[in-house]
Amino acid sequence: MENNKKGLFITFEGIDGCGKTTQIELLEKYLNSKNYKTIVTLEPGSTQIGKKLRQILLHHEGFVSDRAELFMYLADRAQHIEEIVMPNINNGKIVLCDRHTDSTLAYQGYARGGNIEQLQILNSIATSDLKPDITFLFDIDIQTAQKRLGAIKDRLEASGYDFYQKVRNGYLSLSKKFPERIKVIDASLTPEDVSEQVKTIIDTVL
Amino acid sequence: MENNKKGLFITFEGIDGCGKTTQIELLEKYLNSKNYKTIVTLEPGSTQIGKKLRQILLHHEGFVSDRAELFMYLADRAQHIEEIVMPNINNGKIVLCDRHTDSTLAYQGYARGGNIEQLQILNSIATSDLKPDITFLFDIDIQTAQKRLGAIKDRLEASGYDFYQKVRNGYLSLSKKFPERIKVIDASLTPEDVSEQVKTIIDTVL
Repeated sequence: MENNKKGLFITFEGIDGCGKTTQIELLEKYLNSKNYKTIVTLEPGSTQIGKKLRQILLHHEGFVSDRAELFMYLADRAQHIEEIVMPNINNGKIVLCDRHTDSTLAYQGYARGGNIEQLQILNSIATSDLKPDITFLFDIDIQTAQKRLGAIKDRLEASGYDFYQKVRNGYLSLSKKFPERIKVIDASLTPEDVSEQVKTIIDTVL
Repeated sequence: MENNKKGLFITFEGIDGCGKTTQIELLEKYLNSKNYKTIVTLEPGSTQIGKKLRQILLHHEGFVSDRAELFMYLADRAQHIEEIVMPNINNGKIVLCDRHTDSTLAYQGYARGGNIEQLQILNSIATSDLKPDITFLFDIDIQTAQKRLGAIKDRLEASGYDFYQKVRNGYLSLSKKFPERIKVIDASLTPEDVSEQVKTIIDTVL
């Protein structure tokens, strides 16, 4: 049993089509092969309450105010941290989380013009100041991401190229602000090569 | 048409059983009799999104983190302000709102020990700094409120006397902090006598 050993909190960020999901799977396999206990989770929608909020966030038809949307993401996050992330870290597991606080900063902040300092304060409240040990930022140019999305690329196109360019640049700004935590990965390479970059970094903290 | 005249935003606060609902009805009749256009609304649950959030807030079974609950109330508020309150004020109506920012401060703040300054900042974000023109605080002792609730008093008893005493005291603290905005009404009197107090105050701002 590893119950007396504190786990890790690792988050995965990047625009749709950057390959996050594949990389989370590959990293989980790698960690399990080294006998680390893992749990894969995501925001929004990992808790029962989060699933209800995700339903509203992604599928509500009709007007949604920007601030209402933001507070729903924060509600999901607060519930997620308290119900899933913290207990698993305290139980010695490595928590692999698809999207977290940096998504709020990149999307609601840099891309939509929200106040970054205010969003950072809101993130701190939602997470009770818990910070990821490492954040992998899968950086990729918009066209390549778009190609990968293939059949579901309409979703990307709906928001427009400029929007995703702002998200990408926002993420890169964050990586410069928090270079110790946020590791930028060249996500344009093959999944295997991207995975090698991830493993090299994760090995330094295990 | 009064479309070029800005309306008013009036909020009603107090513990369950204080008689808010009855007083809102009586005030609306009074205002309509004077040819003012009114709209009665409430938090949480007045918008489509708000109804979904209210369903979670009041009926979700299982664990709800305090901060998730808080952010859901704020999401409801942000949507409500933008979708209902602001457009109606701008349209010259008098908006009568059952519960608003002071409920968050009294319940999540004073009664549950939340950080009051932090909650005030969150309220400001959720409302885009819109403040009620007047807030009526219906003050009543817990036992009298409990008696009035009658059949549904279990709900009150579930949270316990001490909790509601803290809510009441919290509301009274707020009325001392914001004496210009928050008008304390003795809600232990008959509905007619309470209504007279409300009308006397509302006449000073019409």
